[in-house]
Amino acid sequence: MSREVMSEKSPALVVHNIGQLLTMADSSVGLVEGDGLTVTCDEAGRILSLGAEEDAGLAPGAPEPERLDAGGGVVTPGLVDPHTHPVFAGQRSVEFGLKARGATYMEIHKAGGGILSTVRAVREASFEQLSQTCEANLSRLLRWGVTTCEGKSGYALDLEGELRMLEVMRAVNERHAVDLVPTLLGAHTLPPEYADQRAAYVELVAREMVPRAAEAGLARYCDAYCEDGAFTTAEVETIFAAAQEHGLGLRLHAEQFTDQGGAALAARMGAASADHLEAVSPEGIEAMAAAGTTAVLLPGAALTCRCPWPPARALLDAGVPLALGTDLNPGSSMTSSLPLMMSLACMQMGVSVEEAWRGVTVVAANSLGLEDRGTLAPGQRADLVIWDAPDYRYIPYHYGDNHVKNVIILGKPIN
Amino acid sequence: MSREVMSEKSPALVVHNIGQLLTMADSSVGLVEGDGLTVTCDEAGRILSLGAEEDAGLAPGAPEPERLDAGGGVVTPGLVDPHTHPVFAGQRSVEFGLKARGATYMEIHKAGGGILSTVRAVREASFEQLSQTCEANLSRLLRWGVTTCEGKSGYALDLEGELRMLEVMRAVNERHAVDLVPTLLGAHTLPPEYADQRAAYVELVAREMVPRAAEAGLARYCDAYCEDGAFTTAEVETIFAAAQEHGLGLRLHAEQFTDQGGAALAARMGAASADHLEAVSPEGIEAMAAAGTTAVLLPGAALTCRCPWPPARALLDAGVPLALGTDLNPGSSMTSSLPLMMSLACMQMGVSVEEAWRGVTVVAANSLGLEDRGTLAPGQRADLVIWDAPDYRYIPYHYGDNHVKNVIILGKPIN
Repeated sequence: MSREVMSEKSPALVVHNIGQLLTMADSSVGLVEGDGLTVTCDEAGRILSLGAEEDAGLAPGAPEPERLDAGGGVVTPGLVDPHTHPVFAGQRSVEFGLKARGATYMEIHKAGGGILSTVRAVREASFEQLSQTCEANLSRLLRWGVTTCEGKSGYALDLEGELRMLEVMRAVNERHAVDLVPTLLGAHTLPPEYADQRAAYVELVAREMVPRAAEAGLARYCDAYCEDGAFTTAEVETIFAAAQEHGLGLRLHAEQFTDQGGAALAARMGAASADHLEAVSPEGIEAMAAAGTTAVLLPGAALTCRCPWPPARALLDAGVPLALGTDLNPGSSMTSSLPLMMSLACMQMGVSVEEAWRGVTVVAANSLGLEDRGTLAPGQRADLVIWDAPDYRYIPYHYGDNHVKNVIILGKPIN
Repeated sequence: MSREVMSEKSPALVVHNIGQLLTMADSSVGLVEGDGLTVTCDEAGRILSLGAEEDAGLAPGAPEPERLDAGGGVVTPGLVDPHTHPVFAGQRSVEFGLKARGATYMEIHKAGGGILSTVRAVREASFEQLSQTCEANLSRLLRWGVTTCEGKSGYALDLEGELRMLEVMRAVNERHAVDLVPTLLGAHTLPPEYADQRAAYVELVAREMVPRAAEAGLARYCDAYCEDGAFTTAEVETIFAAAQEHGLGLRLHAEQFTDQGGAALAARMGAASADHLEAVSPEGIEAMAAAGTTAVLLPGAALTCRCPWPPARALLDAGVPLALGTDLNPGSSMTSSLPLMMSLACMQMGVSVEEAWRGVTVVAANSLGLEDRGTLAPGQRADLVIWDAPDYRYIPYHYGDNHVKNVIILGKPIN
């Protein structure tokens, strides 16, 4: 491979001795192999060049760049987690113990446990406590190679509380290296004080939360949980219409436990993604394929909730773009290991290794409307992971363990 | 809880500020909770006392012990992994990629790939290469809290090669903090050069490998792989009879893919464990319960091979002691995360959190004949893990991530 761009800028960082580069620049993983491949990054945190060692030389008189040895390992784009709930309070390990003994998610939910226990904890928590949890979650994601993640509100379920969750994300995003894309999830579940006023809560979300979040620039997306026991497609449609009116993109928790027609609704309204999809119908798949809606699959939630695996193969074969997320949250998927999601997808869901890599890089980035990352090319954000692995397939293969050697965000080595 | 033993020895190490202690000293996890609990260890690497802070005082004039702050977290016995294959060469990530696209374990096996590719690599590897891999695997297990693991030969499949694998384990065991219990697995699969001489290979294992390994003190256990395509119960019985004659304990790979009657054979011959058991029959369970044979379940192998989960609940309800292992190996379970196995057992197999903890501590230790570990009590080996977790249930609940804060082996902090 020859050097793609001969920039006039001098590199600020040279990652050298790379064995495999995944550029994601074709319909597979854009694999480039060779001895001594390099990636160079400029001062502004963009990729300058990809190429062979000899091409990465300095312009005469340029300052010496920082050099990072990839040890012959694999270099990929920084991972993008397209579905997390990183702001919460408390933890639900006792509930996990009950579930292990046989209680189901919906049983715990209906008994007032589950998500409502997190809602109580979040309402009581200080801004600083919520920020610390969010920051800790971003740092955990970073350790597994995540450089960008989406993050949802949805545990306050009142106007000021939902805005506060989004403000926490903004504050943390300003100081944390991981780039956080905020989503308003006011319609996560019906808060107890609205138990007999469903319509009033939907109005609150659509007429107050959405406009306030959008006007303050606190959210880029609006999400809702479309499920038996949560919100109907009609209710979601009301909220989504308001979100569109206020310039927010759409994402939807769809068909996690039962087929509600959420996937088709997401497709029809031009949502960026429909997420979960364990119970999606063939019609839902067809609608998503026709609309180009990304499927964000969450293997960890299926695992934790003992759901069937989502029909990844059917989605892929229909031409639906497939992304993978952790669903990091304190109830149904308490993890930050996005590589483990790749492993689960490959082991259990008929997803090829190459499809899994695309699902945590370019497809995830596209689903968040981020064209400047998820691939490696000159001009892209210099968000990279150096993996201590002899082959890109090794990373999902050697599951459970962490193979991240270095994470680079905007051209800066983080760890 | 009062101090259990007032030893006259002075402590060499005091672990203090413990929030929860799992002693494993009852039929559950032996939970002790309180503010400022301590564990003290003596110079010889044994537990001196468990108790309250004020009881851990020094005898007058005694040297100041090392103090380790548990940060209010959980302290458990060091984890015991009762089933690993830590000595190998090469890696099989390309095969993993093929399997993700649909090839099955047995298809790859019958095509001469799979295990035989590892056999070729091990036969070609130097003693030093094998030792480095074994050492790296033990270090990975250690990072997840494992302080003792069983390890099997089985990738050389000739007399000198199998002995060499056991010698690698002995050499590594002498210099690595993790305690490695060696098992001869000469009957892992039929080597290609014996394809038409099954009986001769069984004789080689029974009449040469077993005696040589036993006489040299290189193995404590003898294992075999009882499966369609590997060895029959009659062949295993020949090998096990020789092993018993030479004083080796027995372990058996049984009913991973098909019911061969291996569990009943293991029970009848007094084996310490029958492992895998994805396809065990009710009769096999009954025989194991009657004989007290430990079931070593390997959720990672079931996951990787897309097998049904082993019937953990039926085994437990029948009274079979249940242990959990990683099955760390380059083909069907490339991982060293024993905590992930606990999570999978709790999430998917109907195993309670308490049963999972027993399965990676006291039950696993008992299955290896090790009465001096797996529980916390005065006189036991001071093998401890300090977890950065508010509750013992948190560790399998917050899956995928590593919550190990410190590992202590024989009273010495390792990391």
